[in-house]
Amino acid sequence: MMNNYSSRRVVVLGAGGYAGQELLRLLASHPGFQLAAACSSGRAAGPQRLAEIAPGLAGVFRLRGEPEPPCLPISDEAVHEAQAELAFLATPHEVSLEWAPRLLAAGLRVVDLSGAFRFPVPETFERWYGMPHSAREWLAQAVYGWPEKNRGRLPGARLVANPGCYATAALTALWPLIEAQAIEPGGVICDAKSGASGAGKGLREDLHFVELSGNCKAYGLYTHRHTPEIALHAGMETEALTFTPHLLPLRRGLLATSYVRLRPGWDAAAVLDLYQRAYQDAPCVRIHSQGLPDLQMVTRTCFCDLGFRLHPSRPQATIVTCLDNLLKGAASQALENANLMCGYPQAAGLA
Amino acid sequence: MMNNYSSRRVVVLGAGGYAGQELLRLLASHPGFQLAAACSSGRAAGPQRLAEIAPGLAGVFRLRGEPEPPCLPISDEAVHEAQAELAFLATPHEVSLEWAPRLLAAGLRVVDLSGAFRFPVPETFERWYGMPHSAREWLAQAVYGWPEKNRGRLPGARLVANPGCYATAALTALWPLIEAQAIEPGGVICDAKSGASGAGKGLREDLHFVELSGNCKAYGLYTHRHTPEIALHAGMETEALTFTPHLLPLRRGLLATSYVRLRPGWDAAAVLDLYQRAYQDAPCVRIHSQGLPDLQMVTRTCFCDLGFRLHPSRPQATIVTCLDNLLKGAASQALENANLMCGYPQAAGLA
Amino acid sequence: MMNNYSSRRVVVLGAGGYAGQELLRLLASHPGFQLAAACSSGRAAGPQRLAEIAPGLAGVFRLRGEPEPPCLPISDEAVHEAQAELAFLATPHEVSLEWAPRLLAAGLRVVDLSGAFRFPVPETFERWYGMPHSAREWLAQAVYGWPEKNRGRLPGARLVANPGCYATAALTALWPLIEAQAIEPGGVICDAKSGASGAGKGLREDLHFVELSGNCKAYGLYTHRHTPEIALHAGMETEALTFTPHLLPLRRGLLATSYVRLRPGWDAAAVLDLYQRAYQDAPCVRIHSQGLPDLQMVTRTCFCDLGFRLHPSRPQATIVTCLDNLLKGAASQALENANLMCGYPQAAGLA
Amino acid sequence: MMNNYSSRRVVVLGAGGYAGQELLRLLASHPGFQLAAACSSGRAAGPQRLAEIAPGLAGVFRLRGEPEPPCLPISDEAVHEAQAELAFLATPHEVSLEWAPRLLAAGLRVVDLSGAFRFPVPETFERWYGMPHSAREWLAQAVYGWPEKNRGRLPGARLVANPGCYATAALTALWPLIEAQAIEPGGVICDAKSGASGAGKGLREDLHFVELSGNCKAYGLYTHRHTPEIALHAGMETEALTFTPHLLPLRRGLLATSYVRLRPGWDAAAVLDLYQRAYQDAPCVRIHSQGLPDLQMVTRTCFCDLGFRLHPSRPQATIVTCLDNLLKGAASQALENANLMCGYPQAAGLA
Repeated sequence: MMNNYSSRRVVVLGAGGYAGQELLRLLASHPGFQLAAACSSGRAAGPQRLAEIAPGLAGVFRLRGEPEPPCLPISDEAVHEAQAELAFLATPHEVSLEWAPRLLAAGLRVVDLSGAFRFPVPETFERWYGMPHSAREWLAQAVYGWPEKNRGRLPGARLVANPGCYATAALTALWPLIEAQAIEPGGVICDAKSGASGAGKGLREDLHFVELSGNCKAYGLYTHRHTPEIALHAGMETEALTFTPHLLPLRRGLLATSYVRLRPGWDAAAVLDLYQRAYQDAPCVRIHSQGLPDLQMVTRTCFCDLGFRLHPSRPQATIVTCLDNLLKGAASQALENANLMCGYPQAAGLA
Repeated sequence: MMNNYSSRRVVVLGAGGYAGQELLRLLASHPGFQLAAACSSGRAAGPQRLAEIAPGLAGVFRLRGEPEPPCLPISDEAVHEAQAELAFLATPHEVSLEWAPRLLAAGLRVVDLSGAFRFPVPETFERWYGMPHSAREWLAQAVYGWPEKNRGRLPGARLVANPGCYATAALTALWPLIEAQAIEPGGVICDAKSGASGAGKGLREDLHFVELSGNCKAYGLYTHRHTPEIALHAGMETEALTFTPHLLPLRRGLLATSYVRLRPGWDAAAVLDLYQRAYQDAPCVRIHSQGLPDLQMVTRTCFCDLGFRLHPSRPQATIVTCLDNLLKGAASQALENANLMCGYPQAAGLA
Repeated sequence: MMNNYSSRRVVVLGAGGYAGQELLRLLASHPGFQLAAACSSGRAAGPQRLAEIAPGLAGVFRLRGEPEPPCLPISDEAVHEAQAELAFLATPHEVSLEWAPRLLAAGLRVVDLSGAFRFPVPETFERWYGMPHSAREWLAQAVYGWPEKNRGRLPGARLVANPGCYATAALTALWPLIEAQAIEPGGVICDAKSGASGAGKGLREDLHFVELSGNCKAYGLYTHRHTPEIALHAGMETEALTFTPHLLPLRRGLLATSYVRLRPGWDAAAVLDLYQRAYQDAPCVRIHSQGLPDLQMVTRTCFCDLGFRLHPSRPQATIVTCLDNLLKGAASQALENANLMCGYPQAAGLA
Repeated sequence: MMNNYSSRRVVVLGAGGYAGQELLRLLASHPGFQLAAACSSGRAAGPQRLAEIAPGLAGVFRLRGEPEPPCLPISDEAVHEAQAELAFLATPHEVSLEWAPRLLAAGLRVVDLSGAFRFPVPETFERWYGMPHSAREWLAQAVYGWPEKNRGRLPGARLVANPGCYATAALTALWPLIEAQAIEPGGVICDAKSGASGAGKGLREDLHFVELSGNCKAYGLYTHRHTPEIALHAGMETEALTFTPHLLPLRRGLLATSYVRLRPGWDAAAVLDLYQRAYQDAPCVRIHSQGLPDLQMVTRTCFCDLGFRLHPSRPQATIVTCLDNLLKGAASQALENANLMCGYPQAAGLA
């Protein structure tokens, strides 16, 4: 199987963050990509050892008989010397707005894990992210990298906007239903729960162990940035969607409980059939025809799992989707996109 | 303040469970109740030391210079010898169905923490609990012990049905809105999250530390027993309510996120005013006019906290309520009821 | 019982920290102390509401029908206006070095929870804390506030140095053995494990939820500041003690496993008898004659529990002690000291 | 690299336990082994789907384009039909005592993860495990599968006794020191801390989430079965070792803090050099020359990490070793052994 892969050189920017480290881990054993450099946007002034930014990866490359990739502060020079053809940006959207254009101009293809390029209309970004969009010229050709919907557009893409973690879970539940006009257009509710790594590595009082351990809280009611992203790519009005994220006392994993009103004629069998057809070519989506998925089934995997129940007497469905926010919600989905951009099987390197 | 209290003798049945232990802890420092006996429905054949069923309570009575109450297997004799006037049943509903009538017949007043007496119509119990109701003759005089609604009916009550933990959180959010006809009658959604102690002490695979740590799962979709309880006491049709409980990886605490469609004319100020008036006499309900409550604010307290947000452009509200499932969701609410039954201030012994 | 208490006015400095908040909570229900003011050393410029620095305490005073105490930035004026006779310093040692002398000069008695006054010889402080001791004139009259040993010296004390959390657990295990010359003087090992609140509220990468959840690490090998404190007050040479703290993924609780070599003649019965006699007057120490204590037995209580086992064939013992680092390791022990300073029963207000 | 591997058929017995599931996961991507069958010793009467005993593995084989291995109740037939040459026993020692001889008699080679074959003298087993040894005839040829020490004896081995999780961590710290006569023979103390998966999947009250969350406890003082295993294979008297395990509130990971008295002449440089030489050929042991390892560095990896500190003035060292109890403490070490038995590189399939 290996023989069909060429080995393409890639770089990771933002290698010190949680999603960046997952990317490094996945790339370390990917048959078709070679990690040419790991760049951190952060603190260090000069080269670092990989173990300093990702202690868990120390020894992994040695075990495989491969040299550790260099770890460098992000710079045009570092990128140039890496001779890569593809870059993963696991950086905040401000950094992606600056670096995506520079990398694209230098001829690299880009998979951006931030929110910088997820909206074709810059005003949407500007309203929800509260800052001007400084790379508008690239928006037109950015492909929203949810492969379940946009698989066909990825092979030729130069710039891919990797979906947000909440968005991936919500879209998996909602998009087939909206596409098939199976649900009423208004009044979709998505109540989502996520572990703490989704908030990133930055120190915050509410992420202090003593504060979060044993806690659970709702946040961002009617204001979370993934709200317009979910609505846009699911095919509904933003204001028709109520999206409520909650912070859970766990490291990784995200579960979304979505509530929709079904149109006449949609019973459980029809809904199951709809989901199974929608995701029959999706290697990283698993439909539970019985039972419901939970976080233990998906953490540290590349899967988004889906299960659902219908109200016994009213036309309503509750859909549960879950995934690992750092994998299907970030790094492994970025690799799905990169795989498709490069002509590899969608799930190459993810098993 | 102390001088106004007589000291009434009480017994606790089900003293070995999580709610039972909280009752013992609260009673140990209550100014108006004396714990005459702690009975466990469980294993032991003869008297036990309190420390065996509730190790955390060892020494608390000694510190206060009081003798430890006897711990006995439940029996008519044990109850008789205790010479108590009030009994708390922190027992499963099967046990409550058996013991509540015996205690009532013996002249005791009863606060039952199980689901046995929460429905005036026995058929509701029988349908949702899957067993016959063997104490129908007591249903007519059972008072549903949510003091926020039924404060006035408690002084004379002989049998009080203490609400379920989920029900308390959901009712706190929903009842004032329904009472004031502020929301559309259909399509209320309550997405609730609870720690593991809500499931009790029994050993279960999904409550094994390795399974639950880092996990989150939805369960009981459209079938949870608190669904009809919430609907009935909030004043709505059961089928108009969608209630989804989730299990969280924490010991205690319960957070409910409720979604309602507001009727014309209800803006944020009107909703806040409604809640503040509804709970102005409720010492254990706290309304957050800004910000939202979280579990850290309520665990190990007797409070149910409430906060809410309105959709910026559509007539919809999201209400967050939270409480400690073992306290306001069980033991401390039982004491609120007992306090009112005995003419004490509602929150006596809870500060 | 209440009638024997006068009501003395006290202030808490450092009210926003974890130990400070526990002090506030305990003082809120103490029969002999009245919280005249809660001062935070931190951020705010003017008065705050108590709920802002200790959200969990909101409503507790209201429930008790008492006014909330004022929350002020620390200042001589604030202290003066409080008209208190005793101050608790739940502050870092740098702050205690500044404020203890000012409060003492103003006529208040002081219980300091920091390490500033735990060593009679300033050079010990200076070596282990790495800074000059700016209040040497007060060292001579500071009493080390471990009441199990120094109960008799507390009634007249003006300045009490409350022990460290690790030190309290280690001393409980070691002091009776050393006092009775039951163990060899060299080679005592204390392997201790503590929850994260012991490290305080400050943001640190290793206390980020994602980093600490699921983690355990040793730290401060041969360099932790509690090493000389344990040795000095247990009555041994500092270099004869090996003390290794570990950070655990839990909020509160501290367990110390101590290893000692017994002298001839000390069997299990003799050791048990020694401990029982040593702590017969200690209301907050519980000796387990069978079984071993664990954190669940002591968290959120004022107790230090002790159990032990002897090697079946060699003269060696393993002693397990545990406590809540914020209570017996900080706030409740501070109240034991204050109780004894004021002539109250040692455990008043702690049950 | 792949081309050097033949593909050997293996079976796993005890596939439903925690170690068994890790074995399945590792075998799913191992270049030289093919999982011919997964047998559970447990409940089911007939064939099951893999997803039923190991939900997390559902889809992994599909992703790799391979069929799922059959899941069968353990039986001679199942083993025969699997046509395997090597069996992993991830079973309790009672089951291993029964099945290892049957598998060996059927011509398979065996890696047993239980304690059944770790002692050459059956009396040691019988004393510490409290039951007769029913397979004494195989003890003489069992090789203790700690590859760091016994690498050379594994290629020809038919029966390998995989070490216990605690034993692996303790041996990594102690064996080089004892082998080099660097430490005094008496008075070695190993204080170990482990996550809950080390206790297995069986339901137990102290492993209930509510009981263990936030708890920490010592257990098995002077009686834990790994005590004689550590002593024997480290080369010391059992009674010279004090071994104290503790249960931590985390899923996986084990950290051992070992205390030894150094002989004259052993300074930090000499100890570091000793460890580096001892493990220079060990791909799964990492020596930290600076800093100390913690659980986050090793969980979900095949590594045992080691760091140490010397007392500043006395001849004593504290050594910290840590590992993932289900990997280097069980499944990945079993694969190291199987790799060496089959002539593969020791860490094949573990990166």
